[in-house]
Amino acid sequence: MSDNLYDVAYNLEKALRESNDFKELKRLYDEVNADESSRKMFDNFRDIQLNLQQKQMTGEEITQEEIEHAQKSVQLVQQHEKISQLMAAEQRLSMVITDLNKIIMKPLEEMYGAQ
Amino acid sequence: MSDNLYDVAYNLEKALRESNDFKELKRLYDEVNADESSRKMFDNFRDIQLNLQQKQMTGEEITQEEIEHAQKSVQLVQQHEKISQLMAAEQRLSMVITDLNKIIMKPLEEMYGAQ
Repeated sequence: MSDNLYDVAYNLEKALRESNDFKELKRLYDEVNADESSRKMFDNFRDIQLNLQQKQMTGEEITQEEIEHAQKSVQLVQQHEKISQLMAAEQRLSMVITDLNKIIMKPLEEMYGAQ
Repeated sequence: MSDNLYDVAYNLEKALRESNDFKELKRLYDEVNADESSRKMFDNFRDIQLNLQQKQMTGEEITQEEIEHAQKSVQLVQQHEKISQLMAAEQRLSMVITDLNKIIMKPLEEMYGAQ
């Protein structure tokens, strides 16, 4: 029975890989990364976001300067057509994956929620 | 294509529900919860664990008394045959789910890791 579980998981991996949402994300990701200036802008944006998230999580103080710097980097990527398309595609796939997880985890949710 | 993705996710949900690992977990969970003293002991253990985790995450100080109290509750559930079986079953299913997630997320891991 456990074998079947892994077989079905591999089917889902294949379906995700072949889904339009993933293919579109992959296409945009490759396009952004193929162009050096786009790639650098996107990497820089990611680094700034990650740094802020880490500071928030550890409760470290975030300066006004850092907030303004982050806002500027958001504006910059939003004005970049490919990067903003890539971010929208990431958002869409992230919602799909949230839905998939909700479906798969239903048996556990039912069990723990029934108490 | 997106329809197919959700269909396959429902297949995986069904396979998880019908797996021996899940059925065994459900059986033990129901047995522990059907007996009031076992249920209370398990709930109490969970509450203590959760409380300690929250304090660790928020960086709140954990007293020596709390540590000893938590250690005693661990010893108590470890000596309880059904509860310790339940906890082992939870651990096993948790590893299965980690494996499933690794399989499903492979396309994204490959994409983001390839840079």
